[in-house]
Amino acid sequence: MSTLNNNVAQEVSEPNKQDNILRELNPHLSFDEVDILYHLAVDTSDLEGLKNKYRDVKFVCMGGSRGRVENFARQAYEAMSGYYSMPPDAHTNDIARRAGRFVMYKVGPVLTLNHGMGFGSLNIALHEVAKLLRYSGATDFSFIRMGTSGGLGAEPGTVIITKEAYDATCEPGYEVVSCGKKVRYDATADKKLNEEFIQAAEDLSINYQIGNTMGCDDFYEAQCRLDGALCDYTLKDKFDFIRRANKEAGVFNMEMEANVFLSFCNRAKIPGAVVCCSIVNRLKGDQITSTKEELKSFEQHPLQLILQVIKNRVVEAKGEIQNS
Amino acid sequence: MSTLNNNVAQEVSEPNKQDNILRELNPHLSFDEVDILYHLAVDTSDLEGLKNKYRDVKFVCMGGSRGRVENFARQAYEAMSGYYSMPPDAHTNDIARRAGRFVMYKVGPVLTLNHGMGFGSLNIALHEVAKLLRYSGATDFSFIRMGTSGGLGAEPGTVIITKEAYDATCEPGYEVVSCGKKVRYDATADKKLNEEFIQAAEDLSINYQIGNTMGCDDFYEAQCRLDGALCDYTLKDKFDFIRRANKEAGVFNMEMEANVFLSFCNRAKIPGAVVCCSIVNRLKGDQITSTKEELKSFEQHPLQLILQVIKNRVVEAKGEIQNS
Repeated sequence: MSTLNNNVAQEVSEPNKQDNILRELNPHLSFDEVDILYHLAVDTSDLEGLKNKYRDVKFVCMGGSRGRVENFARQAYEAMSGYYSMPPDAHTNDIARRAGRFVMYKVGPVLTLNHGMGFGSLNIALHEVAKLLRYSGATDFSFIRMGTSGGLGAEPGTVIITKEAYDATCEPGYEVVSCGKKVRYDATADKKLNEEFIQAAEDLSINYQIGNTMGCDDFYEAQCRLDGALCDYTLKDKFDFIRRANKEAGVFNMEMEANVFLSFCNRAKIPGAVVCCSIVNRLKGDQITSTKEELKSFEQHPLQLILQVIKNRVVEAKGEIQNS
Repeated sequence: MSTLNNNVAQEVSEPNKQDNILRELNPHLSFDEVDILYHLAVDTSDLEGLKNKYRDVKFVCMGGSRGRVENFARQAYEAMSGYYSMPPDAHTNDIARRAGRFVMYKVGPVLTLNHGMGFGSLNIALHEVAKLLRYSGATDFSFIRMGTSGGLGAEPGTVIITKEAYDATCEPGYEVVSCGKKVRYDATADKKLNEEFIQAAEDLSINYQIGNTMGCDDFYEAQCRLDGALCDYTLKDKFDFIRRANKEAGVFNMEMEANVFLSFCNRAKIPGAVVCCSIVNRLKGDQITSTKEELKSFEQHPLQLILQVIKNRVVEAKGEIQNS
């Protein structure tokens, strides 16, 4: 029942490696001081407790809405229960409840939380979860974002696996501001992780495309929607921009997090991937024309792909142990 | 019991004015088509129903966390119940529940909702609430943000009433991206509304300062915190920047929404104010040293000020009717 846990136990016997990564990424952090992860309602006062709870985490799966994450936790529990011994309330015990910001569940090797909407909210989730796992001695974990998005050329139901993320001006990457200065960072997804998603999509016969994703810190104006409270541009301005983004930069979808997510992962030395389903082809129009049932099914696609990738890895790990 | 409602009834008999503002701000919007406000779980299919429910709204009070808004709704219900007849579940009936993004309550003339954290989440709340009220025929409403913040020179417990908001590079205003192009907009608070907050602070003997606020789309790096998962700068870099922001630009606090909030209000022709309590003086250090009880009391200050401003207006309106 706990084959992966055995693997994990070997891997986490490298405290110096973890300590080095933590200090390399931020020399001000220390295992000797209590760090309060405010927005997760977790602190490092009981470091041994954290290690026991989180060091076997291999997948951090984030989505914007609480509902999607609650749903995913439930599905992950069902999918993992054959391979992992887990507390019976693993998928309903919201770890971050006291902070009142996010929901977060630990389901076997999967940590899943909602990151809210947009860059600022996501940034907080990324910093605090990355610190939580570094403090806990977790190794070889990946960050995956699952969501919905407006497709450019991608028909509803198609999953876009992000190759590289762009900002709302159609420049690749993301500009971080620190101490008043802007620095742009690369926002390319992890190649190996993307290959695993392609394999999963093939396994499950889910339509997918590999393309670039535009991350915008706004649902209305930055994504050229015409139905915000404010709109200073014309229908022609909109189509000129999104058609150019699609043709010249290979942007297949627009959402609100991909470039922050992937640039953070690259900087923090964490393999990262973004898998978002198109729920509307915005090259045709902004209105969603699918039925409620279709939408519900489309929103499942990224979740199904992630669970398949996790299963593939679990099976692979079991095989390794049996062969050793 | 419904003196303000009488006033309101007179004011809303100006459908053309509302129609003109809606179309002026976005010529693509129309009262004739159903608009779905996705993230609030509201649509305009029953326009008369919306009008009956929302046209008396005079104050939209937003905060980041669900807890603060739930708390404020309860307090507003108690404060308003002497002046307004309201459904008994007004402060517990979450209008936006079905969308799974925000919580929102309608308590007499007060609409209160949480906007999440950061620019992207707030932007969505602003666009959809502004449209909701324009469609509903509400007039002369104000938007107020209530929150906590890191003070620069402002001791914990001090409320900073924002005069003008700056971005994380210490430039005044906010840059909106639309169709790939950046345009900077002014983020000055409404003078009259600020005067009402000063009066309320005097009435309640709550410590306050009028100053500028830096809005950053990030809790860690953009606000120069040293305890994020990533940190490429030194203690000296941090203090050089925040001291300069304080001395040269009169920035008294840093949070994650002020410049988006006020620039949106200005563009949408809505009086806007931001009242945030300092919970730490970051010129001295980043660690919060107040007790839990002190923090709870500090977080109440902006809520108390807002309720006082609302009460002052209600009393003023009653006086006008009695004198007419």
